[in-house]
Amino acid sequence: MLPEEVLREAQTELLDWHQTGMSIMEVGHRGRAFQSIVEQTEADLRELMDIPDNYHLLFLTGGATAQFSMVPMNLFAKKNHADYIDTGIWSKKALTEAMRFGQVNIAAQIEYQEGLACIPKEEKWSLNPDAAYVHYTPNETIEGIEFNSTPKTGQVPLVADMSSSILSQPINVRDFGIIYAGAQKNLGQAGISLVIIRDDLVHEPAIPTPILYSYKLHIDNKSLYNTPPTFAWYILGLTVAWVKRQGGVKTFAEINQHKAQTLYHFIDSHHEFYNNTVHPDCRSRMNVPFNLSQVNLTETFLQAAEKEGLTNLKGHRLAGGVRASLYNAMPQQGVDKLIEFMKDFARTHG
Amino acid sequence: MLPEEVLREAQTELLDWHQTGMSIMEVGHRGRAFQSIVEQTEADLRELMDIPDNYHLLFLTGGATAQFSMVPMNLFAKKNHADYIDTGIWSKKALTEAMRFGQVNIAAQIEYQEGLACIPKEEKWSLNPDAAYVHYTPNETIEGIEFNSTPKTGQVPLVADMSSSILSQPINVRDFGIIYAGAQKNLGQAGISLVIIRDDLVHEPAIPTPILYSYKLHIDNKSLYNTPPTFAWYILGLTVAWVKRQGGVKTFAEINQHKAQTLYHFIDSHHEFYNNTVHPDCRSRMNVPFNLSQVNLTETFLQAAEKEGLTNLKGHRLAGGVRASLYNAMPQQGVDKLIEFMKDFARTHG
Repeated sequence: MLPEEVLREAQTELLDWHQTGMSIMEVGHRGRAFQSIVEQTEADLRELMDIPDNYHLLFLTGGATAQFSMVPMNLFAKKNHADYIDTGIWSKKALTEAMRFGQVNIAAQIEYQEGLACIPKEEKWSLNPDAAYVHYTPNETIEGIEFNSTPKTGQVPLVADMSSSILSQPINVRDFGIIYAGAQKNLGQAGISLVIIRDDLVHEPAIPTPILYSYKLHIDNKSLYNTPPTFAWYILGLTVAWVKRQGGVKTFAEINQHKAQTLYHFIDSHHEFYNNTVHPDCRSRMNVPFNLSQVNLTETFLQAAEKEGLTNLKGHRLAGGVRASLYNAMPQQGVDKLIEFMKDFARTHG
Repeated sequence: MLPEEVLREAQTELLDWHQTGMSIMEVGHRGRAFQSIVEQTEADLRELMDIPDNYHLLFLTGGATAQFSMVPMNLFAKKNHADYIDTGIWSKKALTEAMRFGQVNIAAQIEYQEGLACIPKEEKWSLNPDAAYVHYTPNETIEGIEFNSTPKTGQVPLVADMSSSILSQPINVRDFGIIYAGAQKNLGQAGISLVIIRDDLVHEPAIPTPILYSYKLHIDNKSLYNTPPTFAWYILGLTVAWVKRQGGVKTFAEINQHKAQTLYHFIDSHHEFYNNTVHPDCRSRMNVPFNLSQVNLTETFLQAAEKEGLTNLKGHRLAGGVRASLYNAMPQQGVDKLIEFMKDFARTHG
């Protein structure tokens, strides 16, 4: 889902961007026109996220999946072992990929307490103080599990896959070595990803690495070594500008908190019909997965919802059930409409 | 440059694609809506290029540069040496990258006859009959050098970087092992690339390869292993459909031939003012680079041209001078307008 304002802006200037007589899809990536987008996007992101000068911003392709490879291929240059926190399917994908290039220590894994999924407390993690880095996934979109604070890893750089949580609340960038995010949740459209990397972590990769998988190459070339996905970059820029106009990440933190609370509260107060199996301490603000107690009603629920314009509610193919995604572009009214529908559905099928 | 028809279609349906109430930027890549784009695009390409069933079509990210790595990383699985034909800057980029992963034999290199660049005759190439593949670049965009026929490599698979020539004229796909092309010239917008690969060349890569650099993975997942650049894929689909509506690649071959002939003829008949230094046998139909005899007039020429709406004429930063790109989306009138301008400029500055 994208903000309608962003889509309308893109539509209006699709054939003539800023009186250039050209579509943004046609302007050269080394020309003045595109350069102004590059600079504005970086400036807006630095302001919104308070990114210090010793961090580089990169705009790359391949989504988070490419980062699952790039992180170890680049960070294993000095020592080739790292700690991973396994909280769900995305964490597992990241750590499985890292195993191709070095040693992975699973320092912590999701636990179940009375049927509820929990992230184990940090004092129980088996972190290696000599690891190249610690990798974690602040929000697991499929299971709907989210960290409610940033882990402390001391001198070991913390690497975070923020694909599904970036710009959804304030974070302290200084706590991280690398932050990466595919754009398609909170940053616009698929086809581009943002990487924020601390200066001291930039080295030549030690193993034979495809040229586009070197952070150093992209930093040296300001993400313009090869033709970038210019249109996706432009939409990212419009989305970031929209976040700024709405009041920035603090505003979205409040809105997102409220959207999630409303929906979890409704589910919990209708537990005879709907249920979510994540411990309240680590419930995701971005993705609310739930099941119907009468599992065989799931398809009926999804079809009836779609008729009401409530789309994209099907749970991930690996999880089933229902999942409501509450990214920045989803307004409170969308959540209220969903709750109304769920109330009606429970009444008529309960 | 994109066809105006394609841009208008994209603009019209940007907020509501095919009565779904959603932008194509918002539809899920595993849903029915996007699936219909995937299928139509593949069917159109198979028809336009007459692609046999034993070839797979892949839609990937990273442009041609990613293919410079993927080709050796995947094809060196059985033997790790290949032949490369070096005809310019893009060939050199491809072969330099291949050297990271195995042995490269430069089987032929551009020659100069009386100051004109020539591709050496095939009988002079030092091809290795045991090579994993032969790689070449049918059209070099920076130097404006193009092969006028497909090289014969016998049993050794031929790999071609067709980024700047795909869909510009009929080719026999059966002559090739792999054809790849970044989309931004003749296939739409930057951010997606097309790979056409013969079935028998698909293996597990032998060396540690990032997951997204395995052809096999993408074939097994129909290019949907991770979130693809859905909007760029959609624009590619619209562009391919437009090529079909215009009459297909044969029509474009004629138009492109005529556009190039007109421009080269004008340059040659004004050689006291403009000059192109490529031998007529291998002049590019897609990119016409030329210099002004009075080199110090180049900037004046480019600025005056831009005032007339003739943009993107600056030669590549590695080559300088002037370059007219005549991809499919450039109509004959565009070339005629350029020639009129060049005539006037020569008259007033000659």
